[in-house]
Amino acid sequence: MVMSRTHHISQQFDKELEDIRSKVMTMGGLVEDSLSQVLEALSRTDMELAERIASSDYKVNEMEVDIDGECTAILLRRQPAAGDLRLVLAVSKIITDLERVGDEVKKVARIVARIATSGGQDSYYVGILAMGHHVRRMLRAALDAFARMDSHAALEVAQEDPEVDKELEAIMRQLITYMMEDPRSIRGVLDAVLAARAFERIGDHADNICESAIFLVEGKDVRHVALEDLRQQLARGRE
Amino acid sequence: MVMSRTHHISQQFDKELEDIRSKVMTMGGLVEDSLSQVLEALSRTDMELAERIASSDYKVNEMEVDIDGECTAILLRRQPAAGDLRLVLAVSKIITDLERVGDEVKKVARIVARIATSGGQDSYYVGILAMGHHVRRMLRAALDAFARMDSHAALEVAQEDPEVDKELEAIMRQLITYMMEDPRSIRGVLDAVLAARAFERIGDHADNICESAIFLVEGKDVRHVALEDLRQQLARGRE
Repeated sequence: MVMSRTHHISQQFDKELEDIRSKVMTMGGLVEDSLSQVLEALSRTDMELAERIASSDYKVNEMEVDIDGECTAILLRRQPAAGDLRLVLAVSKIITDLERVGDEVKKVARIVARIATSGGQDSYYVGILAMGHHVRRMLRAALDAFARMDSHAALEVAQEDPEVDKELEAIMRQLITYMMEDPRSIRGVLDAVLAARAFERIGDHADNICESAIFLVEGKDVRHVALEDLRQQLARGRE
Repeated sequence: MVMSRTHHISQQFDKELEDIRSKVMTMGGLVEDSLSQVLEALSRTDMELAERIASSDYKVNEMEVDIDGECTAILLRRQPAAGDLRLVLAVSKIITDLERVGDEVKKVARIVARIATSGGQDSYYVGILAMGHHVRRMLRAALDAFARMDSHAALEVAQEDPEVDKELEAIMRQLITYMMEDPRSIRGVLDAVLAARAFERIGDHADNICESAIFLVEGKDVRHVALEDLRQQLARGRE
């Protein structure tokens, strides 16, 4: 009888953990969608779509509060140990990152709306769109690594972050040239600078999500650990 | 005997909670200092000081990892309830914000180093320095509100965030004018734009710390709650 009750409780607990895990994936899906949409809106300067994106971030915000509340409830009721605790803590960090990705998407959506009103230049955004698609793929891969609890996949994604930084540098150089060539373009180009920075931050958040996934799987806090050291640590873990 | 043992455990537990709380304040002090120093370095274009700041952020990073590890250990060993759990969760969020303030400080330090090499314009930075001092006061007030567990003080600080946004808008308008007047200034002014954005983000993090302090005291998740609603909620709580 005691056994079966314990078993019952643990089944219920497993269900709760599965529930927050699947909610994170739903929230991640929402954020990914809005990121794809804002890239779409940017590529065809679609004001209406941009405004729809900018006004729908409340859904992501609600999910963050909802999931974080569930995490706290689980910590209170279940007092999870080791791996389960790491899952709750990783989820709590990942949803913060996802919410901030949502904030950056909203910033870009507002920029698109401004471009649409002021009649912006498509040529500023070629490199930025490519960078946006790059960080979108990173975000998706980071969430996949979390879902599959694959720390090596997470490390692969984290390795792409320096590439994004290089893309940003090249974009910034190009944008400065535009401004110097035609001072009337400054206001418009400055929006492009801010859009590029927003995508860079989304890459940073994808990187953070990878760190949370690695913490979840390996039980190690790998923030501020150099990539090379990390690669060696994970390789040793596999031996 | 049982009583005294329980008492002993609870004393030890209190000590642990007190320990993470005081470590957060130490970490906050470190971050505040580096923010003050970078404002100092910016105001007199002090290259040496800027480089020292840029290379000392590892201390803040180490503290984040250290405190977060203690939070996890407490959750595992102590399975804290209600208020104690909220303290651990609030601490875990606050140190993430403090670490990111450290990142923004480092960005500004690098900009100062660039200004020092390229010979920048002091006039770009008058408004930005004022804004920097404003967010520095906000950060300190946010940490004080956390230390004293004063949710009303935290709300006061949070109310200043829209003011920072207004300051930023005025600064951006001014900087665009500089660029338009003299295209050769563009590269230098762009650095000023990035410095202004960095201080804006520090204001956002101070705001987040206030939200964590309110969560700690009131047990409510107040992210994404409008300030006016929040004021009413806290007022009702006081009746």
